[in-house]
Amino acid sequence: MHAALRAVSGQRPLVHCLTNVVAAGFTANVLLAVGASPAMVENVAEAAEFATLSSAVLVNLGTLSPDRERAMLEAAAAADRHGRPWILDPVAVGVLAHRTAFAVRILEWHPAVIRGNASEVMGLSGAGGVGRGVDSLIDSHRALDAASTLAREERCVVAVSGAVDYVTDGADVIAVPGGSPSLTRVTGTGCALGALIAAFAAVEEDPLFAAAAASAVFSAAGERAARGQPGPGTFAIALLDALDALVKSAGTSSP
Amino acid sequence: MHAALRAVSGQRPLVHCLTNVVAAGFTANVLLAVGASPAMVENVAEAAEFATLSSAVLVNLGTLSPDRERAMLEAAAAADRHGRPWILDPVAVGVLAHRTAFAVRILEWHPAVIRGNASEVMGLSGAGGVGRGVDSLIDSHRALDAASTLAREERCVVAVSGAVDYVTDGADVIAVPGGSPSLTRVTGTGCALGALIAAFAAVEEDPLFAAAAASAVFSAAGERAARGQPGPGTFAIALLDALDALVKSAGTSSP
Amino acid sequence: MHAALRAVSGQRPLVHCLTNVVAAGFTANVLLAVGASPAMVENVAEAAEFATLSSAVLVNLGTLSPDRERAMLEAAAAADRHGRPWILDPVAVGVLAHRTAFAVRILEWHPAVIRGNASEVMGLSGAGGVGRGVDSLIDSHRALDAASTLAREERCVVAVSGAVDYVTDGADVIAVPGGSPSLTRVTGTGCALGALIAAFAAVEEDPLFAAAAASAVFSAAGERAARGQPGPGTFAIALLDALDALVKSAGTSSP
Repeated sequence: MHAALRAVSGQRPLVHCLTNVVAAGFTANVLLAVGASPAMVENVAEAAEFATLSSAVLVNLGTLSPDRERAMLEAAAAADRHGRPWILDPVAVGVLAHRTAFAVRILEWHPAVIRGNASEVMGLSGAGGVGRGVDSLIDSHRALDAASTLAREERCVVAVSGAVDYVTDGADVIAVPGGSPSLTRVTGTGCALGALIAAFAAVEEDPLFAAAAASAVFSAAGERAARGQPGPGTFAIALLDALDALVKSAGTSSP
Repeated sequence: MHAALRAVSGQRPLVHCLTNVVAAGFTANVLLAVGASPAMVENVAEAAEFATLSSAVLVNLGTLSPDRERAMLEAAAAADRHGRPWILDPVAVGVLAHRTAFAVRILEWHPAVIRGNASEVMGLSGAGGVGRGVDSLIDSHRALDAASTLAREERCVVAVSGAVDYVTDGADVIAVPGGSPSLTRVTGTGCALGALIAAFAAVEEDPLFAAAAASAVFSAAGERAARGQPGPGTFAIALLDALDALVKSAGTSSP
Repeated sequence: MHAALRAVSGQRPLVHCLTNVVAAGFTANVLLAVGASPAMVENVAEAAEFATLSSAVLVNLGTLSPDRERAMLEAAAAADRHGRPWILDPVAVGVLAHRTAFAVRILEWHPAVIRGNASEVMGLSGAGGVGRGVDSLIDSHRALDAASTLAREERCVVAVSGAVDYVTDGADVIAVPGGSPSLTRVTGTGCALGALIAAFAAVEEDPLFAAAAASAVFSAAGERAARGQPGPGTFAIALLDALDALVKSAGTSSP
């Protein structure tokens, strides 16, 4: 985890985020806190070109629109063609028919990692998640079978977020415990974790390790930020400070 | 107020927010702070379906776009057909011709509550508000006649925000004093109050009471957050913490 | 600087921001912290009308979209026709072909000030910036020649942000030292500075002085917020508080 964090802060990967309007600002601040370089380019005329200039791409389906969908398809296709790892965050997939179909369609471009909550992972795998809006009502471990199946079928890594995060490539499973319930009281924390996985995938060849390391860093920061039981406003700020502190305690590495 | 707050945190209503890009993140965090479940789905292909899955819908006109307008009309129509309360926040209506016409058009779908500042309420009622951007230059009590007329004509509740908030169904008027001038120094506080009213309307049958209770909770949180006269950055964070603290002091209820 | 800040907080200029979805909320809070009145209207059907009602207009190219581009062109043209100062923030120009062409096109409407980092200013002047996403890899002083040329050719003021900010009208150059490296660890600080310049240009006739004063205020706030070396989350909040404190220490002026 520390070595991966040092690699991120040392190499400052450019992470191209096509994400939702709710979490965009917080996501950028999370990436900046670990030393990565975020850029949100969601324009269909620019998304493919920018994907090829980036070190990794995040596609988060939170607030789809006709323009954003076209840009996402272009960016994912360009990332795939140019060997850039891209991460799919299938927000609320399984709940709404349109985005479920869109998620299946964009899977064609081979994401390196799919990150979602239990409901979203089950929804995407066809296992029938029971989501409600953007929240999952299901424990993450109950999605493990669906995650493994999805990982094998799509030949990618699947990260299931929850009280315990699970990361699997369909063969191995890594459990990342820890974190804080306060993470569910701040909007965009799951979305920001997806972006963090993209940053780690930019500097680590093995996407299983990248996703696990990013999850471990985020959980550790969540625990640190939750000390003293702050309210949710204070917690969100402390989370950014905690990511920065983790980078500093991990030391530095030369790019 | 406490019983309504307990109902929100106990039932965790799913609030579908079609809102502006400026306030989206803060609005989601305000809803999470009181235990509601926010989801921003602004896509025309999904808005109607999601409205029927939600407990209440917010339509905030802050940053209109052609796509967003179509999604708002679909969501409002679906909410009306399926008996979901929806809240209209007519940002800057009366100032700009396009959105004034749009607001009149979407009124056709019977919002449960209209929440705006004095200028917006007067603009929507045709009383000729004197707005300037998103701010009102008029005291809220001066919009009381316009609010009552609008409430009677549209058969809905109208909430006028200001130094004193007024909530009326055209017959009764509830005045909610308190709050803090600091609320005008943070972007999106009015928009977040509209979302809070939606959350309360999801769990309380009487929209007059729901709007008054949400306004009272927001005012109380504003007062609490303003203690010690923090700067506007600190105040915004303290406001989220204060909402969370109010939920805790209100106790819990079983869903 | 103090007199200009008093003028902003006294006159509360309405600043029409067409900006990106990442920085919109933070930008609005920065404007509110100095007493200006932000309004984000990005709809093509409203942008021109609203520009004529505003005291200044910001056009920030961060997250372009087909709709937003049309709205920006309408707003810039309306601002030019009606004598409103407008500020161009050419985010990532020089990196992506589409937005570089768009920036050149919108220059036709005579911005009062162009604000960017060294790479963006060089990219827009045709001097070949070496940008990477939204960050510049070049020291601001290396863009001085490009800034002066651009200022003369476009007959406007060019502000280059960096460790030292430079502001030039093609003849005079004002250097604004100070600030804090922490400003680069928070998303949207450069975008917010562009909005601050718009607010100052609304109350000061000389755009060179307006841009320099806004840069000086932002640098001073950054220094103040960085005291005690807070993490990036705390720093962003402290920056808003510091702007508010600077307004208070500058005293008041009658509108």
